[in-house]
Amino acid sequence: MLDLTRAEIEAAVDLDRAFAALEDGFRAAAAGRVQMPPVGYLGFPAHNGDCHIKFGHIADDPIFVVKIATGFYENPAKGLPTTSGMMIALSAETGAVVAILRDEGWLTDLRTGLAGAIATRAGMRRDARMIGVVGAGTQARFQIRAAAHLLREREPRFAAWARSPERLEALRRDLAKGGIAVEPVDDLEALCAQSDALITTTPAAGPVIRDEWIGPGVHITALGADAPGKQELETALVARADIRIADSLEQSLDHGEFAPAAAGGLIGRSDCVELGAVLAGQAPARRSDRDITIADLTGLAVQDIAIARVVLDGITR
Amino acid sequence: MLDLTRAEIEAAVDLDRAFAALEDGFRAAAAGRVQMPPVGYLGFPAHNGDCHIKFGHIADDPIFVVKIATGFYENPAKGLPTTSGMMIALSAETGAVVAILRDEGWLTDLRTGLAGAIATRAGMRRDARMIGVVGAGTQARFQIRAAAHLLREREPRFAAWARSPERLEALRRDLAKGGIAVEPVDDLEALCAQSDALITTTPAAGPVIRDEWIGPGVHITALGADAPGKQELETALVARADIRIADSLEQSLDHGEFAPAAAGGLIGRSDCVELGAVLAGQAPARRSDRDITIADLTGLAVQDIAIARVVLDGITR
Repeated sequence: MLDLTRAEIEAAVDLDRAFAALEDGFRAAAAGRVQMPPVGYLGFPAHNGDCHIKFGHIADDPIFVVKIATGFYENPAKGLPTTSGMMIALSAETGAVVAILRDEGWLTDLRTGLAGAIATRAGMRRDARMIGVVGAGTQARFQIRAAAHLLREREPRFAAWARSPERLEALRRDLAKGGIAVEPVDDLEALCAQSDALITTTPAAGPVIRDEWIGPGVHITALGADAPGKQELETALVARADIRIADSLEQSLDHGEFAPAAAGGLIGRSDCVELGAVLAGQAPARRSDRDITIADLTGLAVQDIAIARVVLDGITR
Repeated sequence: MLDLTRAEIEAAVDLDRAFAALEDGFRAAAAGRVQMPPVGYLGFPAHNGDCHIKFGHIADDPIFVVKIATGFYENPAKGLPTTSGMMIALSAETGAVVAILRDEGWLTDLRTGLAGAIATRAGMRRDARMIGVVGAGTQARFQIRAAAHLLREREPRFAAWARSPERLEALRRDLAKGGIAVEPVDDLEALCAQSDALITTTPAAGPVIRDEWIGPGVHITALGADAPGKQELETALVARADIRIADSLEQSLDHGEFAPAAAGGLIGRSDCVELGAVLAGQAPARRSDRDITIADLTGLAVQDIAIARVVLDGITR
């Protein structure tokens, strides 16, 4: 049995293989080839914390994965990271534990970043280069690094806005160390006006991006809404989009970015497509350079399976 | 973070503390003080395997537990154990992983054995001594060892029946090594006739114990039915019992031993009591020496939490 620390896991991940594995995973999910029961949930209101347990199996795969991911939102005040957790890979042939991945939540952050870049590449115009990022937390960093890698041949440029100028400056500095230039923008409406694509990474519980700020041809990848009550985009904007892409129709319409528009009767299941179907070429991500396209990512167990496989392949290669 | 092997875990368990922790856990569950979402399930029909993921938290406890338990029923033919898995204990205050318990399924077997003894002691007559065990697998061994310990002051005697005489003889030999005498009985009806209490441990998908074999005053603890389609006791016997005790009313009536009688409209929720309520003195386990009593155990996450705590207490004591 493998027992991997975060450092060993980070060293084992090959980004190009990870992107390919995630795309395969999304396609398998859209094709109905993935067992993904509802996500398990425990709440710890006394400590403003929660735990999500995701588990699933891709048909014919030799392993399956159980992921435990915690978020305790008072941790930073105690000098501790907000998120933690681990993944366990088991044999789908004998049930034996194959590997413990003590990633402390890093693989979740990574696969979320990679999925954002995949959805952004799928939805943005061919000639688009200017990517605006909303938020300056951990996930903003993962999104920018992933997009810089996946879209490198298009030479993307990055700008970012955050509520806190200090956190925005810290984001700029962190990414500059890795050779990625990010232009800080102090006005969110201005960021929207100058961006071909937006990636939103906030935990907002109400619209951050106004409908009237978004012009024709823009693509938005929204990551923040992963639970009931969270929302980053004005409902009218979701309703007005020409194409809506969800990693999971079921999750997005129930508790993701598309939920308020669905609850209001403005959109239905048939007004959205799944990312896996887009990646399989079964549905267009955009039909014209003037389309507004929105991708909503709520997070799927198949992403955890895919990224765990990339780690295990990297270790045994 | 603790990382415990099966040998370390076995050495850390104190049986008396484990019985007490399990009883506390059942009482907490019956009192509604335990978060126990529905059990997660993955199926692997190509290899006759399954995986159950149980997770929960007892109110105010400093830790919570996620358990992964696999059963792959072709494994013995490959020279591998049928069951496997692990438990993960996490902080309910920070979400950090506190301990990995690589018990390979041993803690599940143990806590199931302990729960069986607790339910049997609760339901059997005060003067009962003869315990008949149905089945000769791993769980039959755990049940007998647990009952021999918990009921030691009553000087219980054990008899057993199994479909395979060879397996029955192996059971007798194994337990004799630990100083527990088990009388092999080659006829199941005879075993029922001579027993004050029965413990059934088979994976049967249809009735093994006939209604007419069970006389007044007998207690039965049924462990086998933990999934839809499994059944060890004739439905008429369940319907005829004077007292029905379930670890979880919801699980037992849905997919446990009480499910067929419930589905047939012969019993309802109000015809059963929960083991935790019995242990708390809120409901009787038997009202007379002529009552037929049946306890059905389907397995609860609170048992996993309780047994994990006993291990961690044993390690740090």
